[in-house]
Amino acid sequence: MRNDPWRREAGRYAFQLKVDTRFADMDPNRHLNNSAIARLYEEARVRFHMHLREHHREIGHPHFLVARVEIDYLDEGHYPTPVNLGLGVISVGGTSYRLGVGLFQNDRCIGLSDGVLVHRGEKGPAPIPDILRATLESYALHA
Amino acid sequence: MRNDPWRREAGRYAFQLKVDTRFADMDPNRHLNNSAIARLYEEARVRFHMHLREHHREIGHPHFLVARVEIDYLDEGHYPTPVNLGLGVISVGGTSYRLGVGLFQNDRCIGLSDGVLVHRGEKGPAPIPDILRATLESYALHA
Amino acid sequence: MRNDPWRREAGRYAFQLKVDTRFADMDPNRHLNNSAIARLYEEARVRFHMHLREHHREIGHPHFLVARVEIDYLDEGHYPTPVNLGLGVISVGGTSYRLGVGLFQNDRCIGLSDGVLVHRGEKGPAPIPDILRATLESYALHA
Amino acid sequence: MRNDPWRREAGRYAFQLKVDTRFADMDPNRHLNNSAIARLYEEARVRFHMHLREHHREIGHPHFLVARVEIDYLDEGHYPTPVNLGLGVISVGGTSYRLGVGLFQNDRCIGLSDGVLVHRGEKGPAPIPDILRATLESYALHA
Repeated sequence: MRNDPWRREAGRYAFQLKVDTRFADMDPNRHLNNSAIARLYEEARVRFHMHLREHHREIGHPHFLVARVEIDYLDEGHYPTPVNLGLGVISVGGTSYRLGVGLFQNDRCIGLSDGVLVHRGEKGPAPIPDILRATLESYALHA
Repeated sequence: MRNDPWRREAGRYAFQLKVDTRFADMDPNRHLNNSAIARLYEEARVRFHMHLREHHREIGHPHFLVARVEIDYLDEGHYPTPVNLGLGVISVGGTSYRLGVGLFQNDRCIGLSDGVLVHRGEKGPAPIPDILRATLESYALHA
Repeated sequence: MRNDPWRREAGRYAFQLKVDTRFADMDPNRHLNNSAIARLYEEARVRFHMHLREHHREIGHPHFLVARVEIDYLDEGHYPTPVNLGLGVISVGGTSYRLGVGLFQNDRCIGLSDGVLVHRGEKGPAPIPDILRATLESYALHA
Repeated sequence: MRNDPWRREAGRYAFQLKVDTRFADMDPNRHLNNSAIARLYEEARVRFHMHLREHHREIGHPHFLVARVEIDYLDEGHYPTPVNLGLGVISVGGTSYRLGVGLFQNDRCIGLSDGVLVHRGEKGPAPIPDILRATLESYALHA
């Protein structure tokens, strides 16, 4: 991620949200703490899935589990400025998809995160139905 | 990480610690929350660096910044059982090193995390001195 | 607090702010967790002090320490609805003041919190200067 | 609480536990953060209730809700030293009881917290049965 300059451009991301930072997100160096930043990415992923269910009723209520997360810490984050997060779908596989997130503060990209989300059925990973695949692909993150 | 079976063996890791889980680490599904798990890995990295400074006085007080974190979520974690974390150095480069962590609960590996830690000087990344390199390599994680 | 019905009226509070809730604020019962709620009150107190310093330059940069916090949990809070917090000064003493906070969600008061904030000098509690006293009193919470 | 010197004596508390502190508990001043401390008290209350259910099977699985929490911050807490918490029952009422907690670090009392726990039935507060009352009173905090 770190080596893809376009990943640091907010405009590339199909879904955007703003999240307030909190005093408790700061570490002893007065920067946003690494694990607090992991929490911001989590919040972004959760809100994206809520958005999909609300705006694409045809997909029903798919359940996703996080199988893998990669985070590149690029620059320091600060309180109390809010952060903006951009999300886009990188690829859709048989039973999982890859979600890319960019973290921005004051128009500066301070981090990137990719997550692998597994579509979860009653007995484990389940094939992603065509309608869900089409919806996910409509939020594609284009290089 | 996920595809290396030996990474799931606690005995492979040179540095071990136990961390209590907390009620607040649980998510609405009564499992250890993904970002709470990221926090456990952070705690392990911090304790490992504290251990190095205390037991290897010759390295002085090197300062490391987390540049990248990868987390594989393998299985559900539970409260109130404590977790055990194993840490080992995967490789040492010019100005950074790669630290591997295994997360265990009840002798079961529930997750893996690799981190890239950059040796930080006053003006940014700084070469890792030989004495620090030798110390890090003494905690090697062997395949 | 719990027994003062007027404390549950948002309009009584001189300073208001909105705070987003986060997925990680939820406990295993899908309600806002008790200590996550304590964190929301903390955020409100910090933001109030930031507001005072920004909008009342004449007070300088007073430093306050939290000496005591009381929290009444009145009703369940939910995610992802944001919360509104109202703050007002209950009383100003010699070296400390009492700050009342109301926590609202969907126009419902779900909690109350009072805090005792000590004005901190270099050697411990310090008298509150007249100009600071006047500023604090201008945010009074009236019964 | 603050004005009762005996509340600062660890030996007064009938139930004791040790909790590890975490790097993420620190605030920008390198002290244990106020809301992180609220979380430690929460952990102590949860562990006490787990202890009651495990060691006093005759009480069944009573469910308690936190109705009120009071916290006195007495001194700064530090990382990475663990904290010790002592808990004792202050009084038992009709449908609730009052639980006192002392927070210690390096044999120093750094905080006190009282909580009001409501016995919860299916339709709200429920009378505390005699057997539960006797159990709670066996953990009394004596002045």
